[in-house]
Amino acid sequence: MAEAETPNRSPEIRKDKIHNRWVLFSPARSRRPSDFKAKSNPQPNNQTECPFCAGHEHECAPEIFRVPADSTNDWKIRVIQNLYPAVSRELDFQNPVSLVGDVAVSGFGFHDVVIESPVHSVNLSDLSPAQVGEVLLACKKRIEQLRSCDSIKYVQVFKNHGASAGASMSHSHSQMIALPIVPPTVSARLDSMMEYYKQTGKCSLCDIQPNELLIAESDHFISLVPFAATFAFEIWIIPRDHSSHFHEIDSEKAVDLGGLLKLMLLKMSLQLNNPPFNLLIHTSPFQDDPSYAHSTHWFLQIAPHLSGVGGFEIATGCYINPVFPEDAAKILRDVRIS
Amino acid sequence: MAEAETPNRSPEIRKDKIHNRWVLFSPARSRRPSDFKAKSNPQPNNQTECPFCAGHEHECAPEIFRVPADSTNDWKIRVIQNLYPAVSRELDFQNPVSLVGDVAVSGFGFHDVVIESPVHSVNLSDLSPAQVGEVLLACKKRIEQLRSCDSIKYVQVFKNHGASAGASMSHSHSQMIALPIVPPTVSARLDSMMEYYKQTGKCSLCDIQPNELLIAESDHFISLVPFAATFAFEIWIIPRDHSSHFHEIDSEKAVDLGGLLKLMLLKMSLQLNNPPFNLLIHTSPFQDDPSYAHSTHWFLQIAPHLSGVGGFEIATGCYINPVFPEDAAKILRDVRIS
Ligand SMILES: Nc1ncnc2c1ncn2[C@@H]1O[C@H](COP(=O)(O)OP(=O)(O)O[C@H]2O[C@H](CO)[C@@H](O)[C@H](O)[C@H]2O)[C@@H](O)[C@H]1O
Ligand SMILES: Nc1ncnc2c1ncn2[C@@H]1O[C@H](COP(=O)(O)OP(=O)(O)O[C@H]2O[C@H](CO)[C@@H](O)[C@H](O)[C@H]2O)[C@@H](O)[C@H]1O
Repeated sequence: MAEAETPNRSPEIRKDKIHNRWVLFSPARSRRPSDFKAKSNPQPNNQTECPFCAGHEHECAPEIFRVPADSTNDWKIRVIQNLYPAVSRELDFQNPVSLVGDVAVSGFGFHDVVIESPVHSVNLSDLSPAQVGEVLLACKKRIEQLRSCDSIKYVQVFKNHGASAGASMSHSHSQMIALPIVPPTVSARLDSMMEYYKQTGKCSLCDIQPNELLIAESDHFISLVPFAATFAFEIWIIPRDHSSHFHEIDSEKAVDLGGLLKLMLLKMSLQLNNPPFNLLIHTSPFQDDPSYAHSTHWFLQIAPHLSGVGGFEIATGCYINPVFPEDAAKILRDVRIS
Repeated sequence: MAEAETPNRSPEIRKDKIHNRWVLFSPARSRRPSDFKAKSNPQPNNQTECPFCAGHEHECAPEIFRVPADSTNDWKIRVIQNLYPAVSRELDFQNPVSLVGDVAVSGFGFHDVVIESPVHSVNLSDLSPAQVGEVLLACKKRIEQLRSCDSIKYVQVFKNHGASAGASMSHSHSQMIALPIVPPTVSARLDSMMEYYKQTGKCSLCDIQPNELLIAESDHFISLVPFAATFAFEIWIIPRDHSSHFHEIDSEKAVDLGGLLKLMLLKMSLQLNNPPFNLLIHTSPFQDDPSYAHSTHWFLQIAPHLSGVGGFEIATGCYINPVFPEDAAKILRDVRIS
């Protein structure tokens, strides 16, 4: 008879107080067998060029701007429209009032792509800290443009790396979707951080004590594994100084963040063998109720995808993480980048 | 120059009023290219036997009960402990009080597996309506047992079919996780349905008018594509009569539901070529605040996984669905099962 319990550490249920949700930690889960053939990581076609490469600009949807602004064939970053957008800049904005019946509004919004390098095979972590900083500043610039549109409430910046993290294009890029609504997970985060502020008079991220969860520090940022990480080896990078909006970042801080982000991506890639991952910028809505200014604090999340999710997560919003955050932090601290 | 907009229907943003979240509908998304090699559906090893098969009972974690109760080698359904549980029945319950600081409690709970057939290659949709009904009644019986444990607040029943829906075992089975907390998505659903009730005096699912979203009907249930479906070709099966808890189902209704569920699984499988999917039972917590009795209504969700999710969904909780629900409903209505 097989044993129903495996030794090691017992499962634990932890509260993610930033998002107000529960995460189940269970090291035993990582030992379960699978009778499906090993999920081979789908590799990109062997092609060396794609529409995002220098010289293929005409295959893309219209450009919004490039970096440097006056470059021709020697651009470093391009921000372009998404050719297959989830929302459309050509529709009229309709105010999504809350009705009792079925509510549908036009899919107005902006969906852009940030091409992070002109070269097909270059990854974000291959860039120098200053170059990663330039990508971050290109996102900041585009967010500031979108902010001038009154009906846009929130901009989500996200990067999909690897097919099982959702990527359809392998050329290094990020995306931005600007929405006329505040999405549900963002509302939950704002409310939960506000609740902490009401109870303590402090911002929950200013107040964080990483201790054994700390991975590394730079002049203006710290990186850590969050106490109730949703994903195994998840990493957050948090500005030391209180700031609600990512677009408040300046050039000096962007380069500093570029260095720490590069270090985290390299450590993760080395330790976990270049896993698929998402990189997410968690910021605040534009027309923030000013009462949220003291309680919301932007941060970056790196979410590696070491295993898929199943019906339990979809039904409940509770994730199962087989790796305790303090163990993940220790492993990531100890990865040496030569 | 490629066009930034494709013709067809414009994108739309719809509110899922049951879960209080937004979904983006964008048919243009379905035409985007991918430079990753086609995701071949990982197939199970060619094995014909596994620990869930008849004759292999000794390779499994302990049995809780079998159907029929007095069967030996000729059992039809077995409910067993999960050998690699996400929560543990051997820990002490700790009350997850809401503190300001980091909250962690023991991972107490029950994690069981429902083996739906003794035969390795039989799918749920291969069973007769009465047999599917028996699987549903086995879930009901186990939920009623778990209900006697005071510290259990909620039981999630879920099925993962296919590797990209999370399945690690290919032998047909479902799982149940009984938790000492009410999970976040469940709380959001209860609150949202309560809000509808407060505004209208009616239960939001009793009040549903499926019209062009209807797929089929049975004596006691209707099946439809929800107005703001999260996934392309998602299906809900809803009891006609108001009922908060799945475990209130009786034998007659279980057989009726078995027939409609089988029909939906067959239609989906035929139309979408046996896609990976999750089957979820959305019920109410045990120690329900009695004020929720009038507003909550259980239902089944079938969520096919035709494409993965990416960073946008993880960050925002907003999903992007390329298929309008009325189009999906029409296609599913028209699938003929011979
Ligand atoms: N020539 C061209 N010009 C301009 N743009 C072009 C283009 N060719 C392709 N594109 C766009 O480039 C983007 C590439 O994005 P990603 O590889 O990060 O993932 P994608 O958005 O496809 O979907 C992933 O992310 C989304 C959001 O998280 C999930 O909904 C989805 O399931 C997941 O696969 C696509 O959105 C595509 O529309
Ligand atoms: N001999 C034995 N006796 C008893 N039980 C046995 C056993 N051998 C294996 N098991 C259990 O059988 C279950 C089979 O479950 P599934 O195939 O539905 O998906 P799994 O739970 O692995 O993970 C999927 O679902 C979960 C929850 O949604 C996600 O966290 C995860 O990412 C996804 O892959 C496993 O939980 C496993 O622990």
